[in-house]
Amino acid sequence: MNDETVRRPLEGLKVLDLGHVYQVPYAGFLLAMAGADVVKVEPPDGEPLRARILVSGGASFPMIMLNASKRSMAIDLKSDDGRALFLELVAEADVLLENFSPGVMDKLGLGADSLLEANPRLIYASGTGYGLSGPDRDALAMDLTIQATSGMMGSTGEADRMPLKAGPAITDFLSGTHVYGGIMTALYDRERTGKGTRVEVAMIEAAYPALASNLGVYYGDRTKTQPRNGNHHGGNAIAPYTVFETSDGYVAIICVTDRHWDHLTVAMGREELMRDERFKDNKSRVAHIDQTDAIVAEWTGGRTRHEVMEAAREFRFPAAPVRGLDEVVADAHMHERGAIFDVEHPQLGTIALTSSPIRLGNIPPLQASDLSELDADRDAIIADWLGR
Amino acid sequence: MNDETVRRPLEGLKVLDLGHVYQVPYAGFLLAMAGADVVKVEPPDGEPLRARILVSGGASFPMIMLNASKRSMAIDLKSDDGRALFLELVAEADVLLENFSPGVMDKLGLGADSLLEANPRLIYASGTGYGLSGPDRDALAMDLTIQATSGMMGSTGEADRMPLKAGPAITDFLSGTHVYGGIMTALYDRERTGKGTRVEVAMIEAAYPALASNLGVYYGDRTKTQPRNGNHHGGNAIAPYTVFETSDGYVAIICVTDRHWDHLTVAMGREELMRDERFKDNKSRVAHIDQTDAIVAEWTGGRTRHEVMEAAREFRFPAAPVRGLDEVVADAHMHERGAIFDVEHPQLGTIALTSSPIRLGNIPPLQASDLSELDADRDAIIADWLGR
Repeated sequence: MNDETVRRPLEGLKVLDLGHVYQVPYAGFLLAMAGADVVKVEPPDGEPLRARILVSGGASFPMIMLNASKRSMAIDLKSDDGRALFLELVAEADVLLENFSPGVMDKLGLGADSLLEANPRLIYASGTGYGLSGPDRDALAMDLTIQATSGMMGSTGEADRMPLKAGPAITDFLSGTHVYGGIMTALYDRERTGKGTRVEVAMIEAAYPALASNLGVYYGDRTKTQPRNGNHHGGNAIAPYTVFETSDGYVAIICVTDRHWDHLTVAMGREELMRDERFKDNKSRVAHIDQTDAIVAEWTGGRTRHEVMEAAREFRFPAAPVRGLDEVVADAHMHERGAIFDVEHPQLGTIALTSSPIRLGNIPPLQASDLSELDADRDAIIADWLGR
Repeated sequence: MNDETVRRPLEGLKVLDLGHVYQVPYAGFLLAMAGADVVKVEPPDGEPLRARILVSGGASFPMIMLNASKRSMAIDLKSDDGRALFLELVAEADVLLENFSPGVMDKLGLGADSLLEANPRLIYASGTGYGLSGPDRDALAMDLTIQATSGMMGSTGEADRMPLKAGPAITDFLSGTHVYGGIMTALYDRERTGKGTRVEVAMIEAAYPALASNLGVYYGDRTKTQPRNGNHHGGNAIAPYTVFETSDGYVAIICVTDRHWDHLTVAMGREELMRDERFKDNKSRVAHIDQTDAIVAEWTGGRTRHEVMEAAREFRFPAAPVRGLDEVVADAHMHERGAIFDVEHPQLGTIALTSSPIRLGNIPPLQASDLSELDADRDAIIADWLGR
């Protein structure tokens, strides 16, 4: 389905991807989507996500989605033979990615210092939870624990209930995307200096900027150390701004301007609210936020989600359906753009995989769907990279 | 506080940042942190986030954090004079970033096609909600609406309650980071081709890969279209794996292996549970998840968060404190690494700004803290870029 004659920006680039699970494999996925030859180096029993497929069907999909674009080679880095072969590949590589715990690669004799000495043009990228230095360097890092320590969890949920994690593994993907950006920055720099370098991204540091609005609210009122506000505006400065129940699901409705509100009142057949002192402008609505929400909720409650969205289009107020994953994977828009695409999987049935969210010029999105079996590409890689 | 003699990878690169609020300004921030000369081009009344400072203190912090590294120039792109000056700057620029609604720049005569014709080496990067093509191109896009339509909201929250947004504006930052990666990919490609190109990232497409685990659970059991599971494991495959209340806050505890559980039972003084059929291995604990959680909750409930974390270190089981933003901004680890740093703000007091989450080699993190007044750098930019 992909046009082989298309030239992609990273063609010819050789990548050793030692990543596991989501964070660094996602960076390797973005490199592969941009045209690089990404070799997924796995331990003899496969990376943890591949191993998990055997115990849980849930791991199949992420493994295929993030790695179908890569070639697989199993190497036991703890054996002398394995390390020797690996070092031969390192000598040819442009980029190495890994997200082992800090110190693991050093103990194997494969740390950045020694590999950069062996191959001074190498970009050696490490994704970690807390970074390669500092007092928390060795603290346990998984998406859940970083959501807890970074402040993301404290900012998610309802004010009178427990803090909640964001459902998706966002600190993994946010930091993995930074790893990709860091590698590209280092590759660009190598064009000038001729030299490789080390790239480092810590999950907790990649999470911090994303808390911009929450930190803004915190610094506005430091007595609220956990500014959880459910689906409402973080700063309680806009109303209506939340999720409403319809007869068959939920919709998000946001009136950023008073004109949006005026349109909504017409849609609701409640034009008198435009002139009501309690609701006529955003400041008044925020002061009467419970009543404002109740008025909108009463209206949405008697309608289907589709009816609310039709009204939003007709009367022009901002609204969005809260979609289930069944709708997301069938999204006509992303399918038309080639951002996601269906493939048949023997166990899972039809699944929607993703191409890169990054588009350059008119280059069509690359769509990879065949996950290599563990070690399946060993001979081809040795032939291509080492010429034997 | 920054060492001016340090060479940064993007030094000499000229950037026109027309971004507003979070998504594209964050990409511009990462470019500035890597050494580029980023000119923030604002409308005569300032970008929306700057304007919001006047009505809400909450906007001050994000505006400073994301833009303190940039120079400001106000240009009215709707005026002939403004456009003429802007085109002079475009002729000198390496990168242009914008996140207006699709079509806005074209209507101003400043679309990618015409600017790439004027300056074939330009990288023209657009951040959008839904992309520059497809049926949903013109749908309203804010972080809240993209969290709703992308499936993030449907995957966040408790199973028996409403879907919830993640507290932070994660789709803005996730897509903004992809914009940065796309720009760096295009700059790297320009080293080969001599030509610039268009870069495009849609928020909804950048969100899709981050749903990897949620999609995995969905494809494992398609009857669950909204697999919300609070703080529990998305696939209900690990126990304990959730957030527990202590006497003074919350902790996340996760037993990924049975050894972690054994350690936890010792910490709790409940060694008999190691041999109890209901709890002895992960499969049994998942089958008795409510009882498992109750046992751990009873133990944590009688302890402070600090005591639980001390026990986690002593007996070696994975745990993390759910931290408030007061703790995050004071984080000793990130401060020691220079990832975040304190500055005094006349209205907000001491605030912790951030450097780039991307580190290259031994280059110390750049720390910018002085937000330019609107249009403050006009003369200097005209002198530096246009030589007059």
